[in-house]
Amino acid sequence: MSAEKTLAQRLLDGDKRALARGISLVEDDDPDGWKLVREVYPRTGEAMVVGFTGPPGVGKSTLLGALTKLERARDRTVGVLSIDPSSPFTHGALLGDRIRLSEHFLDPGVFIRSMANRGALGGLSEAALQAALLMDASGKQAIFLETVGVGQAEVDIIDHADTVVLVLMPGSGDSIQALKAGVMEIPDIIVVNKSDHPLTDTMVREIRGILSLGPQKGWRIPIVKTEAARGQGVEDLLERIAAHQEHLKAEGALAERRRRNLMNEVIAIAAGRMRRELVASLEDDAEVQRLLDEVVARRTDPASAAEQILERAAERQLADP
Amino acid sequence: MSAEKTLAQRLLDGDKRALARGISLVEDDDPDGWKLVREVYPRTGEAMVVGFTGPPGVGKSTLLGALTKLERARDRTVGVLSIDPSSPFTHGALLGDRIRLSEHFLDPGVFIRSMANRGALGGLSEAALQAALLMDASGKQAIFLETVGVGQAEVDIIDHADTVVLVLMPGSGDSIQALKAGVMEIPDIIVVNKSDHPLTDTMVREIRGILSLGPQKGWRIPIVKTEAARGQGVEDLLERIAAHQEHLKAEGALAERRRRNLMNEVIAIAAGRMRRELVASLEDDAEVQRLLDEVVARRTDPASAAEQILERAAERQLADP
Repeated sequence: MSAEKTLAQRLLDGDKRALARGISLVEDDDPDGWKLVREVYPRTGEAMVVGFTGPPGVGKSTLLGALTKLERARDRTVGVLSIDPSSPFTHGALLGDRIRLSEHFLDPGVFIRSMANRGALGGLSEAALQAALLMDASGKQAIFLETVGVGQAEVDIIDHADTVVLVLMPGSGDSIQALKAGVMEIPDIIVVNKSDHPLTDTMVREIRGILSLGPQKGWRIPIVKTEAARGQGVEDLLERIAAHQEHLKAEGALAERRRRNLMNEVIAIAAGRMRRELVASLEDDAEVQRLLDEVVARRTDPASAAEQILERAAERQLADP
Repeated sequence: MSAEKTLAQRLLDGDKRALARGISLVEDDDPDGWKLVREVYPRTGEAMVVGFTGPPGVGKSTLLGALTKLERARDRTVGVLSIDPSSPFTHGALLGDRIRLSEHFLDPGVFIRSMANRGALGGLSEAALQAALLMDASGKQAIFLETVGVGQAEVDIIDHADTVVLVLMPGSGDSIQALKAGVMEIPDIIVVNKSDHPLTDTMVREIRGILSLGPQKGWRIPIVKTEAARGQGVEDLLERIAAHQEHLKAEGALAERRRRNLMNEVIAIAAGRMRRELVASLEDDAEVQRLLDEVVARRTDPASAAEQILERAAERQLADP
C-alpha cells in the first residue's frame, strides 16, 4: 500500500494539474495555497524569469506565443503568466489573446495561465508572484510574465523578473514620451513589434536617441525589431534575453537583483495584506465606519482617521495573527 | 498687545506664504504639517477640485496655464498642484513646464506648486492630497491637480478630484489602446490637445467609437478639442467642467463621490504609512533583515516572512503609536 502523493510532491514532479490547482488556491487566497508555496519554496530559483510589459495592442501575446514555440523547439519547458487588468466589460478582446497561445495548450511542457484583476490590485500582484514561484518549483525552465501598462502595480509584478522586456510598436507615441520624460523605467531590452510598419525605423531611431541620454555603463540596452505574427526577429530576441541573463551572472548581478526582487516581494505581500484588511474593516467594523462618517462630516481629518484605523488594525493583527 | 496669528489662522486668511509653508511641512512629513491639516480640515470642501491626467508631452501644463488665466479673468482664485514622478535625470524638461505657468507666479490669487516623487510613491500621493486640502482651506475656488501617466499612484491622487479630465493629443496611440482594452479608466471629460494637428478629427472619431461601447447612462463624456498654446477651446473646456460639476450636484452625486474619495484617501494614507514603516524596518530592524536573508536563501517563503514582518509592525504600532 503506497501513500498518496501530496499536492506539493505532485507539483514538484511537474504534474500540470497539480500546478493548475496550486495556482487556483493562491488566486483564491486559500490558506492551502500559501502552505503549498511554503513547502515548495526551497525548490525555486532555477527558472529564467522574463517580464514583458508595454501598452495594450502591441502584440505581446503573439510575441509570447512565438517565444514559447522557439523555447519548445529547443526542448525547454515554459510557463506563461498573463496579468490582465482590463475591465470585465472588454474581456472578449483579451480572450482573443489567449487563443493566440492555444496551440500550446496541449503540450505538457507548456503551462499557460491568465490572472485577472478583480479590483484588488495589491491582491493580484501578490497572487501573481506566488503563481510564478509555483511554476518555478514545478520545473518550468523559462517563465514569461506578461503585464499590460506601466503603472505601479505592473511594476510590482515585473519586479519579480530577472530580465524586463518593454514591447512597443510604431505608433506607441505615449510610451516614447514617458520614456523621454523619465516617467517610465528603462527596461533591459526594448522590442519594436509589428516592424513591417513603415515608421519602424523612425521609432527605433527615436528610442536610440532617448537611450543615448541615459547612463552608459554595463549592459547596453538592445532594441530588437520583431514581427511576431510571422515569427520574424523572435530568435534574435531570445538570444538577447539569454545574453542579458549571462551578463547578470557574469557581473554577479543576478543574485543581487533576485535579492532586491525578493525584498520587494515581501514588502508587496505585507503591504497588500494590510491594505486588504483595511478595506475589509470599512465593511465589518462599526468603529471604522463611524470614523469615516466623521471624516465626511469634516470633523476628523483623513490622516487622524488613518492613524486610528491603523491602531485598530494592529490590535486585530495581534489578537488574531 | 495682540496675540500673534497662528499658521492655521494665516492660512485660513488666504496668506500665500502660510500656504507655502504648510505644504512644505506636509511634504516633509513634519508632525506640524499633519497638525495644521487637522486644524483647518473643517474649513475644506468648498473648492471645485479638477484632476488632469494623461501621458507626458500632451501639453497638460500649458492647458493648466490657459485655464488659470481664464479663471482669473472671471475673478476666481486658483490652486495648481503638479505631481511630477519623473526621474531627477530629466528634471530639466519639467522645469520648462513650470515656466509655462510662470506668468501667474506673482498673482496673489494663484498658487502653484510642484511635488516630485522621490521614490516613496505612497508618501507622495499622501502629501499631495494633504496639500490639496490646504489649498482648499486657504480659499482657492478652483484646484487643479495634475499627474502624469495612468498608473495606480496617479489614480490615487486623481481620486481626490470631483471631475477627472484625461488629456491626449493626436499620436496618443497607446492611451487609445488602453482605453479600448479597458485598462485605463474612463474619465469625465476627454481633451484632445494640439488640435491643429491634421489627425485630430481621426482621433476624436476613434475616441467616440470607444465611448460608444461603454455604458450609456447619466453623464455623456464630452470630447473637447483644444490648442492650449493659443488658448483655443479652453473656454469650452471650462464650461464642460462646470457642466460636470452641475451634473454631479443635480444628481446628488457630488456628496457621494466626495465620500468615496475621502474613504479612498483614508485607506491610501493608512496603507502608505504602513508601507513606509515596513520599508524602514528593512533598514533598522535586525530581525527583519534576518528574515529577508532566510527568504533569499530560499529557507523562508516570502508570504511567511511578510506575515512575521506584519506582526512585528503591529507590535511597534501599539508600543509607539
